[in-house]
Amino acid sequence: MKDSTHQADVTIRRTVQLGDPERIRELVGSTGFFSAEEQAIAEELARETLVQGPASGYEFLFAESADGLVGYSCFGRIPCTVATWDLYWIAVAPGTQGGGLGRRLLQETENRVAAQGGTALYAETSGREQYAPTRAFYRRCGYACAAEFDDFYGPGDAKCIFAKKPVTS
Amino acid sequence: MKDSTHQADVTIRRTVQLGDPERIRELVGSTGFFSAEEQAIAEELARETLVQGPASGYEFLFAESADGLVGYSCFGRIPCTVATWDLYWIAVAPGTQGGGLGRRLLQETENRVAAQGGTALYAETSGREQYAPTRAFYRRCGYACAAEFDDFYGPGDAKCIFAKKPVTS
Repeated sequence: MKDSTHQADVTIRRTVQLGDPERIRELVGSTGFFSAEEQAIAEELARETLVQGPASGYEFLFAESADGLVGYSCFGRIPCTVATWDLYWIAVAPGTQGGGLGRRLLQETENRVAAQGGTALYAETSGREQYAPTRAFYRRCGYACAAEFDDFYGPGDAKCIFAKKPVTS
Repeated sequence: MKDSTHQADVTIRRTVQLGDPERIRELVGSTGFFSAEEQAIAEELARETLVQGPASGYEFLFAESADGLVGYSCFGRIPCTVATWDLYWIAVAPGTQGGGLGRRLLQETENRVAAQGGTALYAETSGREQYAPTRAFYRRCGYACAAEFDDFYGPGDAKCIFAKKPVTS
């Protein structure tokens, strides 16, 4: 077992590089919080951005230490909205969790959104017991539950939609 | 001005054909209910389905009369859900509105969703005054307001999320 990575050793970059799609898939797979379909989509969004650049509509933050990719976020303006953004993905490697990296990634994401005029940031997660820490994380970071749809992902698996308005505060 | 098209003269097909993307853009543009960005996306979803087939994840219903395309719907299973579907688009040509074609398209859509095991169908629309008839249409068709997000599309422009569970009733 490795010790938790110290945040001071983690740098954040924004440009998607070759190999990132595979690294993202490995990272989200390692957390145990994402289904196979979700892992494939997380990888696909990075691949689209590698090919299309900013036209993909997705932006990324990659948190890297000497161990490689230890966290990332993926976000973008929601099509057909003026200034409402969606946090599509946020994940931190298991060995790095609990050290504040998730909060740092989320704050950096909010800064990027606000810098581009975003006025609200939405994030979705599951209502299942396994995701109670995720929901608590969003609440600690200033997000409020905007809606909950029962049985959305599957029987007994609600979708919880969190929102932060304004994005930085 | 043409008379309203009689529903008996309208046939419905499911396969996307060459020329449909442009016809969809023209149709949704003619209603005055969709922004330029929305029109472009409506066209793009049909184009993706022409290229990818069912792998696109989108299905369509095209309502045609002697006048050509007079209505359509676009829908699909929401990724990462077991059996929750989204009605991405539904539109009826202005000269054909008021004759029940929207309701027929929606019912046929629900039948297609239910036949594939879908247990819920979601639809989004604006909270603005212009869309009051759209919201009334969903309520008449058995949909309930599941959530409303203020200022979602823009200042003063809420997103209303409607849901029908079960899909056919």
